[in-house]
Amino acid sequence: MCESIPKTMKAIVFHGPHDVSTEIRETPKIEKADDVILKVKYSGLCGTDLHSYRGHIKGPVDQIIGHEFLGEIVAKGSDISDSEFKIGDDVLSTFTIQCGICWYCKHGYSGQCDKTNTFGKVGLPGGQAEYVRIPYAKSTLIKKPASQDHADDSVYVLMADIFITGYYGVKKIVDFLGQKPAVGVQQLEIKDATILQYMVLAPLGVGPVGLCALRVLNHLGFKKVVCVDNVPSRLEEAKRLGAYKTINFETEPTLLKEVIEKDTGNVGFDAVLEVVGASAALKTAYDSVRRNGFISSLGMGHEPLPFNGLDCYLKNINISFGRCHVWSLFPEALEIFETLKGDFASFIDHKVSLDESKEAFELFDQHKVSKVVFDLTL
Amino acid sequence: MCESIPKTMKAIVFHGPHDVSTEIRETPKIEKADDVILKVKYSGLCGTDLHSYRGHIKGPVDQIIGHEFLGEIVAKGSDISDSEFKIGDDVLSTFTIQCGICWYCKHGYSGQCDKTNTFGKVGLPGGQAEYVRIPYAKSTLIKKPASQDHADDSVYVLMADIFITGYYGVKKIVDFLGQKPAVGVQQLEIKDATILQYMVLAPLGVGPVGLCALRVLNHLGFKKVVCVDNVPSRLEEAKRLGAYKTINFETEPTLLKEVIEKDTGNVGFDAVLEVVGASAALKTAYDSVRRNGFISSLGMGHEPLPFNGLDCYLKNINISFGRCHVWSLFPEALEIFETLKGDFASFIDHKVSLDESKEAFELFDQHKVSKVVFDLTL
Repeated sequence: MCESIPKTMKAIVFHGPHDVSTEIRETPKIEKADDVILKVKYSGLCGTDLHSYRGHIKGPVDQIIGHEFLGEIVAKGSDISDSEFKIGDDVLSTFTIQCGICWYCKHGYSGQCDKTNTFGKVGLPGGQAEYVRIPYAKSTLIKKPASQDHADDSVYVLMADIFITGYYGVKKIVDFLGQKPAVGVQQLEIKDATILQYMVLAPLGVGPVGLCALRVLNHLGFKKVVCVDNVPSRLEEAKRLGAYKTINFETEPTLLKEVIEKDTGNVGFDAVLEVVGASAALKTAYDSVRRNGFISSLGMGHEPLPFNGLDCYLKNINISFGRCHVWSLFPEALEIFETLKGDFASFIDHKVSLDESKEAFELFDQHKVSKVVFDLTL
Repeated sequence: MCESIPKTMKAIVFHGPHDVSTEIRETPKIEKADDVILKVKYSGLCGTDLHSYRGHIKGPVDQIIGHEFLGEIVAKGSDISDSEFKIGDDVLSTFTIQCGICWYCKHGYSGQCDKTNTFGKVGLPGGQAEYVRIPYAKSTLIKKPASQDHADDSVYVLMADIFITGYYGVKKIVDFLGQKPAVGVQQLEIKDATILQYMVLAPLGVGPVGLCALRVLNHLGFKKVVCVDNVPSRLEEAKRLGAYKTINFETEPTLLKEVIEKDTGNVGFDAVLEVVGASAALKTAYDSVRRNGFISSLGMGHEPLPFNGLDCYLKNINISFGRCHVWSLFPEALEIFETLKGDFASFIDHKVSLDESKEAFELFDQHKVSKVVFDLTL
């Protein structure tokens, strides 16, 4: 254990809806041989933090919250060799922990790890704090790439969850569209099935995950990406990041239908990325996707599905649901992130100290800022 | 028009539930330039014919029924050149018609053709008759392969619908499992992800489509295929055709759970092929598939889906629904069928003349025969 770790630290604690505060808490200690203690440098405030803040879902009362963070290793358990991690290493953390050895971890589905948990939830104190304990550190931390530029490292908070979640949604679209179609008795050459010409409705909901997905789609060659939201500033950002068209579903309620008619010959989108999870969003996805198209659903729904078995049969619908496998996808997503991260620096428009938690949550809740990062290097 | 075509013919007509009869009808004529008149040689009775026979769905009253047939071209429209089809050609027909030129036909999704219809439904007299008119003949008929053996051609009735539908369900499984998984930070080598070791629950419901799917799975290298049904004779046939295990869900109600525990380490099946469409079958599929696994659903459901958005999210479920694109898939399915057709000859256990329609429907309805073919070569 490093001598310089103080016994207490500052941390942001959730007490209930609209009730968070910065408090003094005991600094976490190594509990298991594969733990690491991280000194946090940057810690993001994620849109999902608002679910409990707004009281939409039950939050972890009296828990330190936050699941988007990076920092420096200041202590490690006996099972972690120096070839794995050294004291002083700059590391990124995934928003979940995962054991690394169960069937799901071994097969590329770390988001379904038998022992997974999310930082800031019950049983796992989060990273909006000066220090955070990382269980299963070998399969939760990744060394931060050595900076080849002088960009602010705070942008890496996006790699904990948001960017990789967007990447996951896109990867499934690429996998689906990459499947060799049947070409029929005429052995028709499918001349227009190039990636550039696929029409993709992505995302439904242009929050940070959606914007990352949009940028990845563009990067991979999808040039006809249509974005839908009802927040003008988000739609402007989507334009800046390369959206082919943007649609404000509140002020332009017929535009999506017009785009489908005009841009797809009324066939519909080849794929739709749904990041909201609400039944209404899935209904829009169903209505907008072409027959035999693909819906990549990242949103965590709680409602009945807005289509029945016959609807699905008649449209030959293909759907993929579920949480991102952040750890499994980290290497391939990081490679793309390194080339795109400059585009995302502007996402983070509000950097403050841990002391300013109340105000930061309020501003974020009221959509007055896009992305809050608690900067512990200040 | 060939001189020898009589003005009237025998045909099986649907009048209502449990009411079919063989009648004299006017022989169809060329109506459009891309029509063909087929002299039927073999015409199958399909399980879906029972839906209307039993009154489960509204049948086409006073219509000639039947959508599984093959025969010889005896007349053709002026748009069909001799390089396409000649009088006298032996041809197979798909169970649907398709225009061949719409977006869906051009892109490998002929089952979604803008102008599709099914033989034996309203507006399109079927093939349980001596003659049948084939609209869009260029994209509905396929030349029968020259026989390299002396097998009975009646087995080709399976190529109108059943075999290719089973193949379609399997193809989607192969496409899904063939996607490159994320391998994680450890860059783990996935040693057991060979096709031989995938556990596939296929089909749920071992009717003719399911048996064809099973045989295709085996042919493609899937050796661990588990079949579920409640009809002992079907499960015996599944064993004969290479099922790894068979489960009678009525007499062995806990066996599926035991197989999942023992054979998959309680992970679940990599993929499930569902051929029934009922909510209960989809629920079994959902419960049996592993997280991040794949459900290939061929059944035409009419009920609400037995899972909501959260169920799908939590299990990272992937599902594909819909009707087979028989014409689009014909060439690749035929290639496999030619090597496997010998296995299917025994499917057809009741060959009769068109005159015996009443008795044939009754026997088929009562599960006393597996597959009826009306043999017009007799």
